[in-house]
Amino acid sequence: MTREPIESWELISSTYTFRDEWLTLRSDRVRLPDGSVLDPFHVVELPDAVNVVALSASGHILLVEQYRHVIGRRTIEIPAGQVDEGETPADACRRELLEETGYGGGQWHDLGSLFPFGSRLTNRTHSFLALDVRKLAEPKLDNSENIRLHEIPWDDFAASLRDGQRPILEGSQIGGLALLFMYVSSSTDPKLSRLRL
Amino acid sequence: MTREPIESWELISSTYTFRDEWLTLRSDRVRLPDGSVLDPFHVVELPDAVNVVALSASGHILLVEQYRHVIGRRTIEIPAGQVDEGETPADACRRELLEETGYGGGQWHDLGSLFPFGSRLTNRTHSFLALDVRKLAEPKLDNSENIRLHEIPWDDFAASLRDGQRPILEGSQIGGLALLFMYVSSSTDPKLSRLRL
Repeated sequence: MTREPIESWELISSTYTFRDEWLTLRSDRVRLPDGSVLDPFHVVELPDAVNVVALSASGHILLVEQYRHVIGRRTIEIPAGQVDEGETPADACRRELLEETGYGGGQWHDLGSLFPFGSRLTNRTHSFLALDVRKLAEPKLDNSENIRLHEIPWDDFAASLRDGQRPILEGSQIGGLALLFMYVSSSTDPKLSRLRL
Repeated sequence: MTREPIESWELISSTYTFRDEWLTLRSDRVRLPDGSVLDPFHVVELPDAVNVVALSASGHILLVEQYRHVIGRRTIEIPAGQVDEGETPADACRRELLEETGYGGGQWHDLGSLFPFGSRLTNRTHSFLALDVRKLAEPKLDNSENIRLHEIPWDDFAASLRDGQRPILEGSQIGGLALLFMYVSSSTDPKLSRLRL
């Protein structure tokens, strides 16, 4: 435990070790507060992401089941995706929800953002709550997306979280749910307070 | 919404685009369920990580303040770190807690694991609850760690979460807190039930 100020690291130089349209690996040379030099310190630059707790007028949460190649398994997730160039997180999230589920409209709440893995990734995940969404269209999936939609009564979903079933496996998604639970924890609006864990 | 089964992607080949002791960037060539080929699909391989909600006998949560170069800011975090080769997550977490804070001992609960960003990162974050930890030693920090320990009454910390102050900014850390809130939500043990959000 130190009583000294927490100082920033000084960036000496950056090298782009790898860069294409999907991912950038930046390797920095940095000076630490004690004067020593750390080289390389790797930073992965990724686009921001979004995810949404979306509830239909009948109180069902929309979940998407898909295959995630990186972790080699099928997952159950809240609708999520990437923020494209020039999009706001809110616009990206409405687009992803519509593409993945065909649902839209409703009342939206901004739950805030998190760094999914701030010791290595630069990006943020922005989370939203969408109430009373309704079916507007058929999903529009690209060929890398093979998605099954599940509509689960909120109370069943919340019970599965309390029972330790953990249907959702990703930190930034569970983080989005945590932001929701914090957001509704002191709300007196019955539409929000019923979403407490 | 499809009614077809959610199929795995077929790995055709992997190229190690970059690899050193800290990070591996693997670029896969994969066949999608519709027969088309995606090339490259980038996968970042990182070691597993751990984090811990640690409470002292007086009911204070241990938080660490440090500078995170990747996101360019000071952060408040629960104690966290990397699982070294040959370590179990539980051993890694006890080691990191001791190194960063000097605290150890107590009763440990395994809260489970999450994928911090499963659309790109292979690694998991394992989260723990440690009750009644006590000061055993002085922190042992390496020269890249300049850490200040904060001991905050749990009720103040929980109130800051409910008030939307979000002192913690990282998804895998907020995810660990969410795993804690799920774990204690139906507990009748007063030491656990008092940790509800």
